[in-house]
Amino acid sequence: MPKPGPLSLNAATVRERWGLPGCIEGCARHGIPGISPWRDMLHDMGVARAARRIRDAGLAVTGLCRGGMFPAADAAGRRAAVEDNRRAVAEAHELGAACLVMVCGGLPPGSKDLPGARGMVRDGLHALMDEARAAGVTLALEPLHPMTCADRSVLSTLAQALDLCAELGEGAGVAVDVYHVWWDPDLERQMLRARGRIAAFHVCDWLVPTTDLVFDRGMMGDGVIDIPRIRAMAEAAGYGGFVECELLSRRWWKEDPDTVLRVVKERHATAC
Amino acid sequence: MPKPGPLSLNAATVRERWGLPGCIEGCARHGIPGISPWRDMLHDMGVARAARRIRDAGLAVTGLCRGGMFPAADAAGRRAAVEDNRRAVAEAHELGAACLVMVCGGLPPGSKDLPGARGMVRDGLHALMDEARAAGVTLALEPLHPMTCADRSVLSTLAQALDLCAELGEGAGVAVDVYHVWWDPDLERQMLRARGRIAAFHVCDWLVPTTDLVFDRGMMGDGVIDIPRIRAMAEAAGYGGFVECELLSRRWWKEDPDTVLRVVKERHATAC
Repeated sequence: MPKPGPLSLNAATVRERWGLPGCIEGCARHGIPGISPWRDMLHDMGVARAARRIRDAGLAVTGLCRGGMFPAADAAGRRAAVEDNRRAVAEAHELGAACLVMVCGGLPPGSKDLPGARGMVRDGLHALMDEARAAGVTLALEPLHPMTCADRSVLSTLAQALDLCAELGEGAGVAVDVYHVWWDPDLERQMLRARGRIAAFHVCDWLVPTTDLVFDRGMMGDGVIDIPRIRAMAEAAGYGGFVECELLSRRWWKEDPDTVLRVVKERHATAC
Repeated sequence: MPKPGPLSLNAATVRERWGLPGCIEGCARHGIPGISPWRDMLHDMGVARAARRIRDAGLAVTGLCRGGMFPAADAAGRRAAVEDNRRAVAEAHELGAACLVMVCGGLPPGSKDLPGARGMVRDGLHALMDEARAAGVTLALEPLHPMTCADRSVLSTLAQALDLCAELGEGAGVAVDVYHVWWDPDLERQMLRARGRIAAFHVCDWLVPTTDLVFDRGMMGDGVIDIPRIRAMAEAAGYGGFVECELLSRRWWKEDPDTVLRVVKERHATAC
């Protein structure tokens, strides 16, 4: 099996200890050629300053996290979400990011209307599409694990994301995170269908037991996901880009970030 | 919308306080016409005694929990699983259970081979099918929430369960638990496809936040699942049977079981 594509560090992986400046310097120091910032960290640093520093460090921006979060209880809330997404598109453009990762949002507070929330996601994406295309920013729809359906993403499967892509047309893609899709019995078929649409490939691992629905992701190799198998599916669909480590983990957040980056580099080479 | 079908109590709902005798008496006392025992509780009571007591109380047995757990690290382990399932089929027959609920099992310890584990599930079901048919016991394949894929069920979606049913033929059905399937973007289509196969319909609710992957289910009405919408799908597919409450919840296990049964009855009437 060929070696994995180049490594990118999703900044959330070390966010409890480092701001974005620390992440940029850390990537440069450890020889990690890609980075994916989160917007709050980006705002803390300043977009222009971050763009310059990332460029100076020679890093690729494999994605900006995150747009989305479209569903809201009323029309004003939904308009505000689209406005915020417009700013995110502009920031992704300024950074030269490969994509804007879309975490589409869950049910509005108090709602049980899942088809309604899905409709709001669809409407929000349609409202954003022209602007994203004009800016040359790919919207990477990220199906999130079904356990996040209520509060983070009513977009739960790759099939569903690809159906949306087909509807949205050029400029829409998918972000495939092994953590979110590994369980899917339809994965192999959908990955082939994703040819030309895979804008980002994220890795971490599923721990047994998993003790938290959001912040207990495992380091690659420490869990049960056959990451090389899923990477091979992505490659069979023509993807040859970065492998981005996004590790939301209370356990790893406690570690020294330089240690984390060393382990991430090692596992990228041995477990991906 | 028509009233929900008659209520059944899955014995796990009150298992921390009551054994099976308590559950049977509780159902009789509260006018709950159906019960679904777990095998360990059944063994504690004795199968013949339980069957007699349930019959005397006039209760329907809407299912026996649970068969399955087929994957194992070696052939001996897999044979032992099939043997244990044979005993479960015999017990379901003796109880006159409407079905044997199949929780198919996760990855064998140390394994990352998901297709392999799925193959073991398939092989185990095939090995059991003749015996189940001869005993008149429907094997109700229960797709479990994808968050249980590693350690409880590599059978994750209704589509996958129905594909298996088609292959297994007569005597195979599905157990639909709203907790496990509510997030599925393909649910409506698959529920229609399930016509003639729905052997059990389970309810509880998805809480926000959910703090445990197994034991934090919510009482019907306390979460975000639109239960009547999913029940309507089941009815559109011809299902008119029991609505079984299965609530695995550390919070509700602390309550007095008579209180739990009163709330279950009320929510069955108002939130299902």
